[in-house]
Amino acid sequence: MPKTSTSSRHRSFCITAAVTALLFCALWAFSDPLPSFSTLLSRPNIKECLQGGRALNMNQEPLHKTFYDDPKIQYTIGKPLIDWDEKRSEWLKHYTTTMFSRNRVLVVTGSQPSPCKNPSGDHLLLRCFKNKVDYSRIHAYDIFYNNALLDPGMRSFWAKIPIIRAAMMAHPEAEWIFWVDSDAIFTDMEFKIPLERYKDHNLVVHGWPNLIYEEKSWVAVNAGVFLIRNCQWSMDFLDVWGKYGLKARTTRNGPDLEINLQGQIVPESDDQSALIYLLLKERRKWGDMIYVENEYSLHGYWLDIVKKLIASKRIEKRVPRLRRRHAEAVRESYEAELERHLAEGGERHDSGWRRPFITHFTGCQPCSGEHNLAYEGILAGWNERALNFADNQVLRSYGFVHPDIANGSYVRPLPFDYPGDEPTDSVDNMEFVFSVISS
Amino acid sequence: MPKTSTSSRHRSFCITAAVTALLFCALWAFSDPLPSFSTLLSRPNIKECLQGGRALNMNQEPLHKTFYDDPKIQYTIGKPLIDWDEKRSEWLKHYTTTMFSRNRVLVVTGSQPSPCKNPSGDHLLLRCFKNKVDYSRIHAYDIFYNNALLDPGMRSFWAKIPIIRAAMMAHPEAEWIFWVDSDAIFTDMEFKIPLERYKDHNLVVHGWPNLIYEEKSWVAVNAGVFLIRNCQWSMDFLDVWGKYGLKARTTRNGPDLEINLQGQIVPESDDQSALIYLLLKERRKWGDMIYVENEYSLHGYWLDIVKKLIASKRIEKRVPRLRRRHAEAVRESYEAELERHLAEGGERHDSGWRRPFITHFTGCQPCSGEHNLAYEGILAGWNERALNFADNQVLRSYGFVHPDIANGSYVRPLPFDYPGDEPTDSVDNMEFVFSVISS
Repeated sequence: MPKTSTSSRHRSFCITAAVTALLFCALWAFSDPLPSFSTLLSRPNIKECLQGGRALNMNQEPLHKTFYDDPKIQYTIGKPLIDWDEKRSEWLKHYTTTMFSRNRVLVVTGSQPSPCKNPSGDHLLLRCFKNKVDYSRIHAYDIFYNNALLDPGMRSFWAKIPIIRAAMMAHPEAEWIFWVDSDAIFTDMEFKIPLERYKDHNLVVHGWPNLIYEEKSWVAVNAGVFLIRNCQWSMDFLDVWGKYGLKARTTRNGPDLEINLQGQIVPESDDQSALIYLLLKERRKWGDMIYVENEYSLHGYWLDIVKKLIASKRIEKRVPRLRRRHAEAVRESYEAELERHLAEGGERHDSGWRRPFITHFTGCQPCSGEHNLAYEGILAGWNERALNFADNQVLRSYGFVHPDIANGSYVRPLPFDYPGDEPTDSVDNMEFVFSVISS
Repeated sequence: MPKTSTSSRHRSFCITAAVTALLFCALWAFSDPLPSFSTLLSRPNIKECLQGGRALNMNQEPLHKTFYDDPKIQYTIGKPLIDWDEKRSEWLKHYTTTMFSRNRVLVVTGSQPSPCKNPSGDHLLLRCFKNKVDYSRIHAYDIFYNNALLDPGMRSFWAKIPIIRAAMMAHPEAEWIFWVDSDAIFTDMEFKIPLERYKDHNLVVHGWPNLIYEEKSWVAVNAGVFLIRNCQWSMDFLDVWGKYGLKARTTRNGPDLEINLQGQIVPESDDQSALIYLLLKERRKWGDMIYVENEYSLHGYWLDIVKKLIASKRIEKRVPRLRRRHAEAVRESYEAELERHLAEGGERHDSGWRRPFITHFTGCQPCSGEHNLAYEGILAGWNERALNFADNQVLRSYGFVHPDIANGSYVRPLPFDYPGDEPTDSVDNMEFVFSVISS
């Protein structure tokens, strides 16, 4: 289903490209090429426009009617929206005069409307939000933070469903909605999501197929971080998934999912168990379009970071180009270089050198203060460390570093050619800090 | 000075445009126009790329050396950077294969590294940050939030100086840095900064020339919200301005500014008094490049919002096109339409119909809890109201509204064709709420 709109845009782009090529060829036949002709052809303008994701014609609202003018269409969950692919295509058609990315991403996150009960909860939320804005800026994604409860019946882990639904309608230009829980932190700022890999799928979650289909485990997937395509399939899926949330308020322990998941620590029926239930019971209906990703970490464990950081610092010590200072806007070029060296250095899986892309403090519940005791260690400053670890990747472009990642209050200017071989430079201090905290 | 890089990019764009036009004209002379030819010509791709501000080639780091490779250049304040215009131009030269906006804006804001003493301070900071991210997304600006104290000697209102300095170096592609204090809120999400107006200036502050030069008033300008061009002039200005901050720590009441400003409520020498001092004492050196703006409000007073909202709702009731639902990405087109009706309805100044662009809760000091008593009313929920007032402009694109702007916890779906003429619709409730709070 999602292919309809994508391919129609792709077709229209191809037609434009073909007509342009025809014009150039015709001219080529009639006159000598101008000196700048090859330069013109090699200019990557079009490519850049497609990549950048910001080449939408923001000033042009078509006078034609679109789905926005249909009073029957509603933004709220539980009001089925039909023919969304066609409606979205129709809207996009009015923007074919402008090219835009086939893979535009809108990051969506949020928290409760009122202040946290936990005294440091809001400060943590502020820093987690900053972390997501940093990642979004580096990769040219849009980001929307929501702190309104759009459906009073869908609280806590269910609140995201109506937000994603509304964001899809508000952003027909976005191909993907990337939901990231407030307590999940980007810990690899360089990592770029391999969207091409998901071209035949509509939902990408982190997990392990054998844990879903064989072990029926509650931790088989993580429902706090996922990519969902802006298409009819997703609208339908959100409606079905969300129904378990709506039902949950009518029964004390939520709807009977007719299945016992191994290791479930949340007593009521939550979004995660409902997702696994749908994968198990309606696999034929939904399974084919869901990509269960585990090649990189969408919800890594923070302690894993430590050894990865030391490994990547060793690569930087070996490869001078990776130590070059550069503008934040060109960081992605370094990702490619680092990636090559990571690949040389060993496997790319969790056990390899790569830092977790996202570190998820599930159970941390920064606001309620009623965190899960199984995650006791988290509140002892682990999230502070993870945030500073991530922030060091950002601050580097601004010439500064937190020398002690256990203390975000203090920064100092980053030495030139960092990390160098000087015995007194801060790398060694950092290695010391890490060896202590990971011991 | 700033013109160097701008004009060279402009020139390169003009050459490209001219060569392209030549190619098309040549073809026009040789063959019959293809049916789609006029359509092709009218395609606003190039224009959109320039406007979008995201057409930078993010994947290409030139192998040539740039200022980033010079170990003598430092990101820290107090280490003068010379020939920045040339250095920046040189860096930009490597991106001439890619077009980017002549007016790229990076919004910079931030707060202290540690949690607030005031229990609701961090929650307020979180919401103020969300508000800035919303504005930046709607207008396709990048945003950077800093909560590291880059120079231990420059705290409080001085902390921004080293941050802006570092941001200029980290973002050579940004033409403007837009500093917005953490306690300033965008209350007109549609308003687009008229950057063309400032093409001959390097610093834009809100203020009144007669209050600066005649009355020597401390409130003649506001130093908490300003635009500063990424150029050598600004590097020099930040160095000179920042010196008053560095001096302030060595003397109890700050450096002697040799001038008494009317109405100064901060006892020590602060960033605002130092700015006015520089305008008064070194007018010849800096004054010509500083634009003192007062045509729209960069730090409005919140109560002014009320009557403006009611006025703009009346316009919406009269003009059906302004009630059309639309994608968030095309909001700027509505701004133009609304602007026209605002102009018809009366003057555009503070006394007219326009909502304050930015409402600044100066003196609110959300973190310390040691707010200025002159602003007592602010803590009685005014900032909550201003935030919800602004959030309603954002939530509208997502199909929801806070019916009571004094209570952000509750939202409800926005009626179709809002604000309509139905006697029971929420507009009237809102007018009632506003009439109560503004009485």
